[in-house]
Amino acid sequence: MASHPRALAEHIDRVTLIDQHAHGCWLAPGDRHRFENALNEANTEPIVGSGFDTQLGFAVRAHCAPVLGLAKHVDPQSYWERRSRIDEVELARTFLPAAGVDHWLVDTGIGADTAAPSDMAELSGGRAHEIVRLEQVAEQAARAPGDYATAFEDILRRRAATAVGTKSILAYRGGFDGDLTEPSAAQVAEAADRWRDRGGTRLTDRVLLAFGLHQALRLGKPLQLHVGLGDRDCDLHTTNPLLLLDFLRRSGETPIVLLHCYPYEREAGYLAQAFNNVYLDGGLSVNQLGARSPAFLARLLELAPFHKILYSSDGFGPAELHFLGAALWRTGIHRVLREFVLDDDWSERDAMRVVDLIAHDNAAGLYGV
Amino acid sequence: MASHPRALAEHIDRVTLIDQHAHGCWLAPGDRHRFENALNEANTEPIVGSGFDTQLGFAVRAHCAPVLGLAKHVDPQSYWERRSRIDEVELARTFLPAAGVDHWLVDTGIGADTAAPSDMAELSGGRAHEIVRLEQVAEQAARAPGDYATAFEDILRRRAATAVGTKSILAYRGGFDGDLTEPSAAQVAEAADRWRDRGGTRLTDRVLLAFGLHQALRLGKPLQLHVGLGDRDCDLHTTNPLLLLDFLRRSGETPIVLLHCYPYEREAGYLAQAFNNVYLDGGLSVNQLGARSPAFLARLLELAPFHKILYSSDGFGPAELHFLGAALWRTGIHRVLREFVLDDDWSERDAMRVVDLIAHDNAAGLYGV
Amino acid sequence: MASHPRALAEHIDRVTLIDQHAHGCWLAPGDRHRFENALNEANTEPIVGSGFDTQLGFAVRAHCAPVLGLAKHVDPQSYWERRSRIDEVELARTFLPAAGVDHWLVDTGIGADTAAPSDMAELSGGRAHEIVRLEQVAEQAARAPGDYATAFEDILRRRAATAVGTKSILAYRGGFDGDLTEPSAAQVAEAADRWRDRGGTRLTDRVLLAFGLHQALRLGKPLQLHVGLGDRDCDLHTTNPLLLLDFLRRSGETPIVLLHCYPYEREAGYLAQAFNNVYLDGGLSVNQLGARSPAFLARLLELAPFHKILYSSDGFGPAELHFLGAALWRTGIHRVLREFVLDDDWSERDAMRVVDLIAHDNAAGLYGV
Repeated sequence: MASHPRALAEHIDRVTLIDQHAHGCWLAPGDRHRFENALNEANTEPIVGSGFDTQLGFAVRAHCAPVLGLAKHVDPQSYWERRSRIDEVELARTFLPAAGVDHWLVDTGIGADTAAPSDMAELSGGRAHEIVRLEQVAEQAARAPGDYATAFEDILRRRAATAVGTKSILAYRGGFDGDLTEPSAAQVAEAADRWRDRGGTRLTDRVLLAFGLHQALRLGKPLQLHVGLGDRDCDLHTTNPLLLLDFLRRSGETPIVLLHCYPYEREAGYLAQAFNNVYLDGGLSVNQLGARSPAFLARLLELAPFHKILYSSDGFGPAELHFLGAALWRTGIHRVLREFVLDDDWSERDAMRVVDLIAHDNAAGLYGV
Repeated sequence: MASHPRALAEHIDRVTLIDQHAHGCWLAPGDRHRFENALNEANTEPIVGSGFDTQLGFAVRAHCAPVLGLAKHVDPQSYWERRSRIDEVELARTFLPAAGVDHWLVDTGIGADTAAPSDMAELSGGRAHEIVRLEQVAEQAARAPGDYATAFEDILRRRAATAVGTKSILAYRGGFDGDLTEPSAAQVAEAADRWRDRGGTRLTDRVLLAFGLHQALRLGKPLQLHVGLGDRDCDLHTTNPLLLLDFLRRSGETPIVLLHCYPYEREAGYLAQAFNNVYLDGGLSVNQLGARSPAFLARLLELAPFHKILYSSDGFGPAELHFLGAALWRTGIHRVLREFVLDDDWSERDAMRVVDLIAHDNAAGLYGV
Repeated sequence: MASHPRALAEHIDRVTLIDQHAHGCWLAPGDRHRFENALNEANTEPIVGSGFDTQLGFAVRAHCAPVLGLAKHVDPQSYWERRSRIDEVELARTFLPAAGVDHWLVDTGIGADTAAPSDMAELSGGRAHEIVRLEQVAEQAARAPGDYATAFEDILRRRAATAVGTKSILAYRGGFDGDLTEPSAAQVAEAADRWRDRGGTRLTDRVLLAFGLHQALRLGKPLQLHVGLGDRDCDLHTTNPLLLLDFLRRSGETPIVLLHCYPYEREAGYLAQAFNNVYLDGGLSVNQLGARSPAFLARLLELAPFHKILYSSDGFGPAELHFLGAALWRTGIHRVLREFVLDDDWSERDAMRVVDLIAHDNAAGLYGV
């Protein structure tokens, strides 16, 4: 057995992260109900029982309480009382810098009341970059005058000029099971007419969803796909990324990044090995799993080549989540890699290099940040 | 790292359980063949090779042998010899009290030769409550005179008056893939006529299965659903509980309890987070997994809110199984929570509270026992 | 807690293996590109990035480097330089005997440039036996004169006379989802005519694939099925072995061995419990998972009865893989069983017996070697 890998622990504590997929944190005040519901990912109704009664809730009390000057594992009531006395902007100024993230890639597709990329940069003291959500571009194109396809291409090109990537939530709009081949111009025009006639909101038309994906492939910037765990609006079993095989086989060289992935992280790792242009992260699964996230992070280190694995928090709403993702990742990757080193399966030097790859090198190369 | 959580260990050793899903233990004598086949869940034919050559068989020798005054890990032949010298009633009087269970919820849908709830209470020194199996109610209604739907409702109402919940084995009768919307009265009548004409045994008609489920929803008492691991009469992949999404979305407020769940425990945990009325347990998976059950119990502590997780043994036949479920649960939950506490991810106090929730509080609230 | 199981460690170090599924190692020289691509299972295109940047690559550096006189975890460049100075035959004479395997079961269905069974025997100092690939028999029958079915049966009978089993790669030829009932003679003749008209290469006709499987069942020698992890030519989700349920229910008594199984090892274990004639191994998954393979080997020890679990390396190409499979299996099974024993869930004596079952006894009984 190798000696205790002290340098690895220190390296993980200090390494700066690129959070390659997050949303804005809250800026406006809210009540306890809003906060506890934000700890539940899957439910779409007001939760019954406490949102603290989950791995995520326990992790907030373990990792975030000390940031607010409270004891680890402080009771939920005390946590809420302290939190509620601090405004959201101040919470953001506390939690975002504590994450040790120097680049935030921000999906701007939801959350009118949340921080814009420029806010995230200012509040965190780091830099922020936009990820353009394709379904939002589609809704903008639906409202634009003239030909839908032209409008989509124009809006995407304009918005992408200052963005580092695109994202699709196809998982929530019918899932991955079904045809994703590139539609013809006539099919797009016809589908757009139908959708505009229905009001052009909440895109679920598969022709237009596929059209958006192929526009993103053509753009060439990394395309992020929501995979697996999300709220119950999606049929979780239709977000198994293996259902994307045909799409991936024809996706060319544009990087495709599978986000979150739970409980399909093994399948996602397989795809990252099978396709030169496929990457993955653990995203929101890490926060959701709390004390169980080390086991999840270990599963991300199965089939995926180490230059294909990325870090993200998927933080959205409470600024705690942007910090907690990083805190749990550091804790979890340390536990996993320490075991590999103690068992002499990996050298400590290799472990530190893989930390750098996941923490920033892979994302820096992929997004050019 | 926190200090060794001694209070947690003692608390788990002593905590009283509600076994929220079991069947009766044997009362009549049987041979070694019967015993070894009872250690195999999945096979429906006489097994070739020893039923002891499994995790369950090893766990019986590890945990049950000392209860019979034998050494831990005693060889199978010695175990069987000792066991065969004790009659089943005496075995029940030995193993059932040793489980530390004060309430047994007994599915009476199978096992003419096994203990009734009143027997379970008497043999264990605890209390027992009935769970009414919907497919058995259907068979009783098929044999009753007059309108099927009326007969079903009458029998269900009468039997449920003294029962604490219902159960469906839809998993074995076509699986979860397919329409489960509430059928019309005419559809029910027509399907019932067809089924009665065919003899009214072994219900597989989907209209009547769905009818039963919706009657149970209307009744409002918790509805247990067999999920995942079972014998090979079911198509295991059609018991993935994600296939219930549409049914759950329209299930209202009646509690629905997913039983056993292996290998779909992650999916079941997701549903317990996604729906206020969904609960889960590990049921028979714990016994089946033996030395591997701590890893399974850890997976039950992923997405499911802690107020949604229940304990059961699914014991059926050998009284060892009613005891072993409890013994393995205590051993396993201790290993999992001890690690959380030693890693300072959870406080010891939180761990003890979650033990109480799973051991009895959640079930007490759900079933009113 | 039991004392440290020293006898178990020594027993695992020394136990002789039957490698129940391998291919030939390379005999002809090749460049670094060939070597690094051989470390990636899933991709079918030239990989971008280093093949060393994977669990398998790290495991080669950890376990194979010392066999070549290099330090553990030596850098990839140094590993390649040393390796490239030794010819493939000499590498085989180094790595094959180091595996501690005395019987190799060799699938001869691919690899014109790789070692034949007789070469494997000579290079390793052990014995080798052939596994006949059914799809290769089909291609031979397509090229033979006269009736296809008769030709298939003749070739299979002749080749199987000196072979110990058969194998199908149905997983790569349409997957398990779909009809596998035995076709009629007329259906076979018609399908064979169509296939011969198209050139008789790369069999994907389901009638002929099913015909081959049923011929193998009739032959009665163990039938190996590729399951799960493979290259992206297969649709991984159609290789879930649960999709074989109908086929298995009608498969009679001919042993069926599920190979590799990742990420469906839990499903495969269920089938090994559910059917007296179903067996499984971890095959190539062990090499692919490297430092994560102990967790995988633990999952193989869930539902499958211990007399149904086998060892194989699935080595193909670099002789390192034939050695590494054995090295990782020894390391991994030791870690898993040591924990069972230290936790007093298993006795050390039981653990040693299960090692013998998996290492050789089960395969010896199954194949008669």
